[in-house]
Order: sequence, then structure tokens, then C-alpha cells
Amino acid sequence: MSTKYTLGIDFGTLSGRAVLVSVSDGVQIASEVREYRSGVISGVLPSTGEKLPDGWALQDPSDYVDVLAAVVPGVLAKAGVSPDDVIGVGVDFTSSTAFPVYADGTPLCLTDRWRGEKNAWCKLWKHHSTQKYADRLNEVYARRGDDFLSHLGDRFSPEWMLPKVLETLTEAPGVYEDCAYIIEAGDWINLLLTGRLTRGYQPAAYKSSYLPGRGYPPDAFLEEVDPRLRGLFSGRLGGPVLPWGSRAGTVTPEAAARFGLAAGTAVAPALCDAHAGAFALGVCRPGDLFGILGTSNCYFILSDTDERVPGICGCVPDGTVPGLYCLEAGLCCAGDHFAWAAENVCPYEYRLEADRRGISPLRLLIGKAAELEPGESGLVALDWWNGNRSVLVNGLLSGAIFGLTLSTRPEHIMRALIEATAFGTRTIFDAFASQGLGVGSFTAAGGIAGKDPFTMQLYSDVLHLPIRVTSTLQAPAAGSAVHAAVAAGPEAGGYSGFASAMEAMKAPVVKVYEPDADRGRIYDRLYAEYTRLHDYFGRGGSDVMLRLRDIRG
Amino acid sequence: MSTKYTLGIDFGTLSGRAVLVSVSDGVQIASEVREYRSGVISGVLPSTGEKLPDGWALQDPSDYVDVLAAVVPGVLAKAGVSPDDVIGVGVDFTSSTAFPVYADGTPLCLTDRWRGEKNAWCKLWKHHSTQKYADRLNEVYARRGDDFLSHLGDRFSPEWMLPKVLETLTEAPGVYEDCAYIIEAGDWINLLLTGRLTRGYQPAAYKSSYLPGRGYPPDAFLEEVDPRLRGLFSGRLGGPVLPWGSRAGTVTPEAAARFGLAAGTAVAPALCDAHAGAFALGVCRPGDLFGILGTSNCYFILSDTDERVPGICGCVPDGTVPGLYCLEAGLCCAGDHFAWAAENVCPYEYRLEADRRGISPLRLLIGKAAELEPGESGLVALDWWNGNRSVLVNGLLSGAIFGLTLSTRPEHIMRALIEATAFGTRTIFDAFASQGLGVGSFTAAGGIAGKDPFTMQLYSDVLHLPIRVTSTLQAPAAGSAVHAAVAAGPEAGGYSGFASAMEAMKAPVVKVYEPDADRGRIYDRLYAEYTRLHDYFGRGGSDVMLRLRDIRG
Repeated sequence: MSTKYTLGIDFGTLSGRAVLVSVSDGVQIASEVREYRSGVISGVLPSTGEKLPDGWALQDPSDYVDVLAAVVPGVLAKAGVSPDDVIGVGVDFTSSTAFPVYADGTPLCLTDRWRGEKNAWCKLWKHHSTQKYADRLNEVYARRGDDFLSHLGDRFSPEWMLPKVLETLTEAPGVYEDCAYIIEAGDWINLLLTGRLTRGYQPAAYKSSYLPGRGYPPDAFLEEVDPRLRGLFSGRLGGPVLPWGSRAGTVTPEAAARFGLAAGTAVAPALCDAHAGAFALGVCRPGDLFGILGTSNCYFILSDTDERVPGICGCVPDGTVPGLYCLEAGLCCAGDHFAWAAENVCPYEYRLEADRRGISPLRLLIGKAAELEPGESGLVALDWWNGNRSVLVNGLLSGAIFGLTLSTRPEHIMRALIEATAFGTRTIFDAFASQGLGVGSFTAAGGIAGKDPFTMQLYSDVLHLPIRVTSTLQAPAAGSAVHAAVAAGPEAGGYSGFASAMEAMKAPVVKVYEPDADRGRIYDRLYAEYTRLHDYFGRGGSDVMLRLRDIRG
Repeated sequence: MSTKYTLGIDFGTLSGRAVLVSVSDGVQIASEVREYRSGVISGVLPSTGEKLPDGWALQDPSDYVDVLAAVVPGVLAKAGVSPDDVIGVGVDFTSSTAFPVYADGTPLCLTDRWRGEKNAWCKLWKHHSTQKYADRLNEVYARRGDDFLSHLGDRFSPEWMLPKVLETLTEAPGVYEDCAYIIEAGDWINLLLTGRLTRGYQPAAYKSSYLPGRGYPPDAFLEEVDPRLRGLFSGRLGGPVLPWGSRAGTVTPEAAARFGLAAGTAVAPALCDAHAGAFALGVCRPGDLFGILGTSNCYFILSDTDERVPGICGCVPDGTVPGLYCLEAGLCCAGDHFAWAAENVCPYEYRLEADRRGISPLRLLIGKAAELEPGESGLVALDWWNGNRSVLVNGLLSGAIFGLTLSTRPEHIMRALIEATAFGTRTIFDAFASQGLGVGSFTAAGGIAGKDPFTMQLYSDVLHLPIRVTSTLQAPAAGSAVHAAVAAGPEAGGYSGFASAMEAMKAPVVKVYEPDADRGRIYDRLYAEYTRLHDYFGRGGSDVMLRLRDIRG
């Protein structure tokens, strides 16, 4: 019998990738990545030249199809593996990343009728103009005394599905009326592959507040928000929510031809991108925490009890792995934040030095930041360049830097930004701990974990925790490949359950960062400053950041 | 009788300049400028390579001599004017900028014995490591219930003479013991020119709290600070304080040969650099305010009554022009602040664009900032990159920026920094107004007034005030030339008093910036935010900036 493989396909913020994994041992055979041609659409809507308001972040769904059609045949060709030896496909996607489609799956934004309407386009997870709709939803929720969000932290995030839908309904009712469905992009990929409309449990639970046994938020709530929303979850957000271990379907002959797969291949339910990492990292015990550190940072901790942590969006049953509760938290920007500094606070001479040394401006700045002692920058920053997800749950907050002097240099600012994301992370871990959820082990994945040892060591020092890094740089895609092996099932050469699949396929730990106590003591002092500023600007002491947005508007 | 001229010689932070002025009408015939070879010495002491602590800012007095020996002959040669037709010389200098000298005027730092000791060097006005000595002086002053500082705001500034002396006494007692005098750099130039040790009234009054009739701070105070300070003002800070309208002396034959002047030429008492501007700007009525806007911004308002304004360092009788009180206030950085942005927040592509357009990165950034609407940056900053002089009087405060997002660009930051200096200025004007000192007219000089119409218009909009700009770009030097014409006296072709000298020699107004009410209304909202943050971080709500310095130390 020939070796069997699964494909994990991960759609990130700027690119999509496929990894081909050996089912028996989880070894990654090959991977293939493509950037989205239009990337993140903000500033201007290309179809009309309309200036997009503050906070808008759109994508073009045709980019997803192009990437899928490139990376699947690409990775198989690279590995020299036949589609017939691929027993399963698993897809994960940033979420909530969603758009309206017709009954046949055609996105409205790709039609002549709607391509000029910005609400018809795909609203990316970090589309933050929805804050006011989240506020409206929260207001009705609080007034009614509902409790269907209690497992998600009792507040709508602007990044979730309902604020996006409400924005579209309010600002472009014609789009809402005309579409058959509003669909998570991951579910849409599965629709393309299988011909069936399904809803992955993970995005449904985390981004549309679905719970097994209880279902979606009640119509009475929706009606009070807007009568036109009645029936939303049986209509435009309808479709079966797939339980763990099930299949979205199998690859249709049309999809097989289009994407270079074999017809009949098992397709796993769609996952959320970061959450998918759990399967690859072998995170499966209470107290296990994993983080996907990249464009933004996501943290997930497993618990055997239903713990509600203030400011943490969610304690979801079976959230990342079946059988345990999972609490999700995160920073709205990390790598994005560092890239901002490399773009804006990297002078001419620094760029020349980077070119001379053959490294990116980002690497140069991080390298210079690494030469400083903790506290030497004299700065402390609030890491809210893209709002605050946890523990303040407010997308309208913005960043700040304190301690600037005429001696402040770009590397001081870079150091402060890196430290700020570490302090933001510690704020989350402290919130977990305050509810008795101590971090037993911390496993990190993502671009920062794989490529930035300075930042990882700094995180370890700030957190006073060892951090484990595995061999996989592509945890979401690798996790989706594990998921695909369960969807394929033992009869096809896969696994009958997650425990056996993870045990066989998880990536080995290749590096452990150990905390340094001396540096940690200095960071403790800086963290105390961060916390005071965090609470003052984040918990109502000063609403200057919100008012600056008003003045700007 | 041939045309008569005076020379105004202005020693700034980075360079010194001489302007040759026609005595009859004040027309500037020529000017000559030279930069100090060593500029501002911070970071490392060149003589030893010793790393200078945070806040140290030194200069090399030999740079002053070199500049004087270059610019005086230079300006005369450029104009084709004989030294014999120069009837007076007036010197102004940044202050307190001071250093220890032997009895013959030799600076200790230029001797083999002391060149390796940092306290022997010239401490520039913005040498801010003295804050803790200012704190100590303030503590003794408050405990004793003294009142000799009441005309200077009741608090020692770290920029004044006594904190500098106390630092030297404490950290390098041998330097203190060995020197004959500690001398303001302007008085030292006059010593070189005339062979006499004198003290200009202006630096003595503003920087050493001298008052006519009362003299210097009492020995009882000094002794309580440190017994070794007893007799300071009759000893190491001794020498006659020259009243308005007197002479420091006349140019000696040796100085004439060394600096290309005629022996016997009248030399006016030394002035403080910014204060000297009053004479050139014709500022002479109560309510007249003038500002020297450059590296830092200084503001002076005239009053016919003795008004004490909280947070303003000084209401000095005869402070800038005889017969009126003068209140002095300022921002510790303005041009310095903008230059910081041009150096640190000006990416590669911006620099290329600046080169292509043949302008400096600073001009490019200001130009891009000028294209934004008020409030569009979404930012507000605290302009304390170099501490706060007025109205908080705390050199240890540092800068901050609020409202940063992933969309923030360098021009947004530049705009916020410019706005912050305007808001800092308005804070000062509001403090004047709170004591009934409304601004009757605002006349501006300095590099920003002459070269940066965008910033001037922005100041006018923020302040809701017209701003007058005269033809002189070098108000301090031109003011010193007026001062020199009075020192020369009518018998030599000069004037018998300041009123007639100013009336004849003041520079004409060439531009008036008128405030725009629409922009002003938006700035009012931003200024309200600035004020809240100013008070929170400056008046004890949060001492994070001070603690960041501690952590850094």
C-alpha cells in the first residue's frame, strides 16, 4: 500500500498556503504559498475609486480561488505526489472573514450589479468599521438580559459575523436582500470543493456564537436589533453546523478538475486559522496554552471546566479540540505592528545598512533593538495600533508611546513595540490566572515563533515562562492536515479520532526559550507601568483615543 | 561724517553669528555665521571617551573663540566696512550656559589638569542632568520660606546657574575649588573683549535670580544647601552686575587685534539670546508679546505691573526693556522636535523624494503634514521631548503620542508634533491670560517664523491670534546691535536711550498671519485633549515619565 497524505490549506491575512503531510507521522513533505493579488483592500475600493472609510478592510474572493488553484497543484507537483494518494483535505481561514453570495455560491462582489458596492465585498476579520454595530448589538444584549454570549465573554467583538451582517444590512440593504447567504470564507472554500453549503463548528461557535444543543442567538434578540434580521440563522446564515469528526463532504469532479485533486477525497469542516494549530502542536491537556504569533497574536488555553474570564472572548466547549473547553484571546496586531515601525520609523541610513547587510529593514530594526538592555529605551507603549481584542474588547482604541526624548532612536521605538506586545500577552495570561487557569505549558507557532528568537526570548522573560517552539512553522495548515486525516477516517488510511491522530502527527518540539530572572525583574517594573496606562486609557480613565477618532471623523 | 554701524553677535545652540547694522535706520548690512566645531557634546566626552550620563549637554569654549574670530572679520569684509566705523558691539548668548575659569579667564576644561573632568566643561542651557540639584534647591527654598525667587516663579529651573554650580560642587569639588569664577558664556566673551569681568543684568536676573536693590540669593540659603557655597555670589559668581544703558567696557588692543575690531569700541553688557530680540522687534508696550521660535521656543510678554503667573518662570523688572516687567516662558524644544521627526520618522522613500525635489527631509515632511486637515492625523502629542519649561517646570518629563494606528504615516506624526508645540504655546498664553495678561500683539522671530509659513499659520489658528513677522530673521543679533548703539552713546553716533534707539532701528513688519476660525474650532477640540493629557501626566495624575527615567537609570 502506498504512503498516504493529507493536505492542509491555510488562508491567512495576506496569503494562502498548502502543506502536504504524511499521515503516518505528520512529517511535512512540501508546502506552497501564494499571496493574494489584491492583499488587504483599504484606502480605496478598486472597482470605483471610492475612498473607504476609516477601519475598512476588504478582500477579493477571486484571490482565494486563484490561490487555491495554484497552491494545491503546486505542492503536489513539488512533492511528486499523485492526487490519488491524498486521502483528505482540511481548510482553515481567518475569521470572521465573510461575504454575501448567491445560492450557487457566486459572490455578489464579483457581479456587475454589486461590484461597486463596498458592502458586497469580503469583510476581512480586521475590518473594524463595525465597532458601532457591535456597540448596538451589545446594547440590546445588555438591555434584554440575554445570556447566549456568556461562553464568548458577554460582548460582541467588531470582528465577529453579526456586526458585519448588521453593517451590510444597514448601509447596503439591497445587498442583504439580494444575497442567498452570507458565508465565512472557509465555508465558501468547502462549498467550492464539495458543492455543499456547510458551516464549520469552529467559526460558527466562535464568530456566530453557536452552541451545541442551544444553537444560534434567538430571533427575539435579532428582531429587537433590527426586525429585518428575523430568521437570519435559518436563512442567510443557515446551513448545517458540522460536529467534530464529521465531513463537509467529498471533492466533486468539477472541483477535482479545477484544483488538481481526486474526486471523492474527504473534505473536513472548515476551521478558524489560528485555532487549527492545536492539532499540529499536540495541545490536548487542561492548562496547555498555545499561541499563533504572527500578523496578530492569538492565544488559546484548554480547560476541563467552564471558566468565564473577564475580557476574554470565549470559553467554548470543544473549542479547539473535542472534549475540552477552550478560551481564546489575542492581540489585534503584533507582526503588523512591527512592520508598521519598519515602514515608518526606519530612516534612510538604516535602509541602506539593511540593504548592505542583505536583510530586511524589519530584521535590521529588531537586531538593533536586541542590542538594548531592558528599560534602556526609556519608553513604554500601548500596543493598540489595531485596537484591543483582549482583555478590553475595543477595536476603537489606538496606540500610544510614552517617554519620547530627543535621544529616542528607531530601535528604541521598535523595542518598545515588541515589549508592548509581550505586556499585552502577559495581561491576557494574568486574566487567565485570575480565574485559576494557570498556564501549564506554552507552545508557540507562527512566523514570530519561527523566525524571531529575540522576540521569543523577550516574551519568555516578560512572562516568566518557558516557551516551546515546534518544528512546524505552519501550524494552522499542519493542523488542518491532521483534521483532514480524521475526516478521511481509518478506512481510507486516516484516523478514527483526534487523540490518535494528534499523537501520531504532532510536530516535535525543537526549541525551548527559558526565562531570565534578571531581565524579568526589570520587565516587571515596565509591566507595572504598562498596566497602569492600559487601565487608564482602556477602562475609562481617559477616552482620548475614542475622541480622537471622533475629531478625525 | 561716515555712516556708523554696530555689531550684534549672537551665540546660539549650534552656531554663532554677527550682524552688521546701520545705526541710523537699523538696516542689516551683512551677516556671517559659523557652526561650533564640536556642536553639542552629549553621548561621549571627547577628551576621554567617557560615556556621558543621560541629560548631559556640554560645549567647548574654544569653539566660541573660533567663531568670534571668524564672524567679526568675516562680516566686516563682506560689507566692506572698516572696524573704525563700528561704534559698538553687543553680545548675546544662550543662557544659563556657564563654565569655570581661572582668574585670567582661562577655562579649566582647556587645561591639561581638568580637560578629562566633564564638570569642567561648558554646561549648555539644555544640560538637564541638573534636575536633581534643582530639586534639592527647591526643597531648601520651600522649607526655609524664602522669597528671593518670587519674581522667577518660586522654583529653580534645572537650566539656571545655581543647579549647574551645585552639580559641579557635588560631583567635582576639585573643579569648584580650583576655579576663580564660574561665568556665563556671554560674560566670558565680554571678558575676552574688554579685559574686565562683568555680569550682564539680564543673565544675572533671569538665571541667577539677581534683583536691583536686593541683589543675589542670601548666603543663609546657600549655606543650608551646602556650607561650601557660602560667599558664592561675592566670590565665584562675583563681579559687578551692569545696569541698563551702561557699558561692559571697551575693546582692548589685544582683543582688537585678535578679533578684527578697533580698540576702544564700546561693548554692551551681555544679554540672554532670546531676550535680546525685544530691541530689534520694537516690543515696548504692556501686552506686547514676542516669541523667538527656533530650536526651542521662548515667549516674553511685557507688563506695567508685577504679575506672578503660576508656572511661568519670572516676572522680572526691566527684564527685556527698561521700565517694564517682563515675563518669560518657553517650550524646551520646537525646531529640535521637528528635526527629531525628520531624522527618525522619515523613511527611505521619503528621503528619495526629498532629494529628487531638492529639499530637506524636514521640509518634505512639513509639506506633507501641511496637506492634512486639522484632526486628520488622529493623533495628539505631548511636546515634552526635551522636558517642559512652562508651565510645568520639569525637565524630566518626556514626550508622548496618542492615537497611533496601522494607518499612521510619518506626516501624521510630524503634524501632531507641530500641533503639540502650538498647544504648548497656547497653554502658556492661557496662563498669562488667567492673570489678566492678555496678549495685545504677538510678534514672532527666529528660524520657524522666517522659514515655515505652515507652522506659523497653524500657531495663529490654534491661538486665535494674528502673528506679526518682521524682516529680521536674526532678532537676537539685531537686538544686540541696538543694545550696542545705546552702549556707544550719542557722542559716538549712537543713542542716548532705548526708546529712541528702538524707534529708529526696529525691523519693519513684513507679514501678518491671520487666524482661521474654522480650523481654530477643530484645534479647540484637540487642545482640550492636549490639556487633559498635559494635566494628567504633568500635574501628578501619572508619574510614568519620571519612573521610566528611573528604570532606564
